[in-house]
Amino acid sequence: MAIEREACLAQDQNDPLAFARERFELPPGVIYLDGNSLGALPKSVRPRIDDVVTREWGQDLIGSWNSAGWYTAPGRSGAKLARLLGAQPNEVTITDSISVNLFKLVVAAARMRPGRREILAEAGNFPSDNHIVESVARLLGLATRYVPAGEIAASVTQDTAVATLSHVNYRTAEMQDMAAVTAAIQKAGALAVWDLAHSSGAVELDLDGSGADFAVGCGYKYLNGGPGSPSHIYVAERHQAAFDQPLQGWFGHADPFRFDDGFAKAPGIRAALCSTPPMLSLLAFEAALEAYDGVEMRDVAAKGRALCDLFVALADEKLARFGVTLATPRDGTRRGNHVSLRHPEAFGIVRALIARGIIGDFRAPDAMRFGFAPLYIRFVDIYDAVAAIEEVIASAAWRDLAPVEAGAVT
Amino acid sequence: MAIEREACLAQDQNDPLAFARERFELPPGVIYLDGNSLGALPKSVRPRIDDVVTREWGQDLIGSWNSAGWYTAPGRSGAKLARLLGAQPNEVTITDSISVNLFKLVVAAARMRPGRREILAEAGNFPSDNHIVESVARLLGLATRYVPAGEIAASVTQDTAVATLSHVNYRTAEMQDMAAVTAAIQKAGALAVWDLAHSSGAVELDLDGSGADFAVGCGYKYLNGGPGSPSHIYVAERHQAAFDQPLQGWFGHADPFRFDDGFAKAPGIRAALCSTPPMLSLLAFEAALEAYDGVEMRDVAAKGRALCDLFVALADEKLARFGVTLATPRDGTRRGNHVSLRHPEAFGIVRALIARGIIGDFRAPDAMRFGFAPLYIRFVDIYDAVAAIEEVIASAAWRDLAPVEAGAVT
Repeated sequence: MAIEREACLAQDQNDPLAFARERFELPPGVIYLDGNSLGALPKSVRPRIDDVVTREWGQDLIGSWNSAGWYTAPGRSGAKLARLLGAQPNEVTITDSISVNLFKLVVAAARMRPGRREILAEAGNFPSDNHIVESVARLLGLATRYVPAGEIAASVTQDTAVATLSHVNYRTAEMQDMAAVTAAIQKAGALAVWDLAHSSGAVELDLDGSGADFAVGCGYKYLNGGPGSPSHIYVAERHQAAFDQPLQGWFGHADPFRFDDGFAKAPGIRAALCSTPPMLSLLAFEAALEAYDGVEMRDVAAKGRALCDLFVALADEKLARFGVTLATPRDGTRRGNHVSLRHPEAFGIVRALIARGIIGDFRAPDAMRFGFAPLYIRFVDIYDAVAAIEEVIASAAWRDLAPVEAGAVT
Repeated sequence: MAIEREACLAQDQNDPLAFARERFELPPGVIYLDGNSLGALPKSVRPRIDDVVTREWGQDLIGSWNSAGWYTAPGRSGAKLARLLGAQPNEVTITDSISVNLFKLVVAAARMRPGRREILAEAGNFPSDNHIVESVARLLGLATRYVPAGEIAASVTQDTAVATLSHVNYRTAEMQDMAAVTAAIQKAGALAVWDLAHSSGAVELDLDGSGADFAVGCGYKYLNGGPGSPSHIYVAERHQAAFDQPLQGWFGHADPFRFDDGFAKAPGIRAALCSTPPMLSLLAFEAALEAYDGVEMRDVAAKGRALCDLFVALADEKLARFGVTLATPRDGTRRGNHVSLRHPEAFGIVRALIARGIIGDFRAPDAMRFGFAPLYIRFVDIYDAVAAIEEVIASAAWRDLAPVEAGAVT
């Protein structure tokens, strides 16, 4: 039986997270299904950044490192985020980019397992992660081996120092069982480094309960911190004393304002910092976190699953007949909050949808990726988006589009 | 003969850079002599950041990576900065922090000199730089040796792979002869990595003309990019083909949106990028650069020297009798744009000055540091600041201050 638009509206009426949509500035006439790439603008950000620029920087100047709490912002915002990750406040800080933080963690983890000769990594992980893995292996004289995420647990050996993988795959949205995979990695004596880029703020995480060692995550996707927002870095409390990361700079020094020549590592999670963080971006991230105030991640995860389930059901109903296939697990317990569809004309379909105000993204060679940020996406948005995809494919609407400019970021 | 305040006002009347002060928001009643630590707010920043947040992020969302030019902002802002550094536009990009960029450069430089066993570095350099040097040496199995900046040229040997030092010392403001020191380093077959933290936007630089190999610099000091503004990184064009830095991420990939598993280095300066830059901070930096539009660095450097000369002359006249000594070269050609004074009560003096609206900073154990940003500091500000220092010391004004809170950033 066909899914009716009215049923979707009814789901929105009963949505316990419906209130959260009001916390965002959303452009009229747009259905934004790319919050997994760049989260929408929380209303809390603009007044905060205006105050940071105008008063804290413009009027109070250098004094704001103390008086406005800039100096403690990485740890303070990390502590606030920790609740959404299932971590303790003293295990998370905010700084640098995901790739830079991954570099810190993979080196630090490998140093804790001297004599082991290999880094095990996820084949098909977000490429930047594996570029970093290659670089670390070269610096430390280690080998690399790549297997699909689902085979990491079975592939770790006594020679594996570190295993690193994404919790939710950027392309397929397939989600790993963090507790089980971590346990398998640790059983072989190795350490696990998780990439939470498509997990933080999207699905339920229990880093501490899962026995996680190390993790990085993204500030600008589901957490809505703004473009290029600094990344979060998690070091389990039990590893903090031994944690020894290579980007050792003055912000990770025990007493940075003594200006000692020698490096003395800061206690706790602060040792994960390197140098002065980009404060405008960091304070925007901190302000954006207010969108999660009073929000429970179990409700976010449940709504995310329901949004994806609806999208998949509508794709079956309306799109399968055009040769559109599902590149994402059907089982909601094995899936993050985005759905990838495959079609040979994926690039053109995504462009034609964008022209209609339905924003998803294209991932080469043939995937259309649609993300469902549970804080601001409605069930009726899903209905309308699939109807638009159907109309675009049925009319081959991409034939009417202007050619893509050379060099454009697609 | 005593220097008169009226003479300082006359100098301001004749200042060819006087127009630039209007480009800044400056708090009333404050003499801000800490622009060498955090530059003042250019008026160009606030409207730009408001537009970035409200329209580019809030309304145009993910599309702004193309339509608003976010993706090309690192290279675009680097190209605009290049003029101030004496570099070609294709030799500079903006990303990450100074320490992170220094890590990239020292590793990359050492890789270009295989078989050489040592990194030569500046004793007394900003500590974070040497923390990074230690980390690189450990990763690459190299030795480190530290000598004062003035002895680097004479100390480089056939076993030196890389020599790294600051162009202007953060504490003493002593400036090195970049061309001569670089030539000496290169004559021994080594490569030079310069830290321009206290030079960029403050003194005349001619990176290309000086034969520089690699350099990093700071966005938030004289360049006024805002707290923690991303750093600039310079790779001489002749080295770009061989440039091989360890923080290899997708923004340094030749074709990042193909999402290839293997890393293929981008051509040119883009290979110095790692991952998604913090866009709010980066775009604030780019907007802040407008304060230098139409400004020639030779005028900036000349005014900077004149401001420092005036400060030194007034310190001789009014402060020497209290035991205040000069920790900065008297010779303006060997000096950056700040002056450090020493006094046993430096910490208290700086705090008492701040309470009077004269903002300098303290550098342990006994230095008071005053920076003179030529775009917005007037000669009369120097006169009034030294008069205030005299009054503070004469009255031992620090005795009246409340105790410092534990943990405060001083």
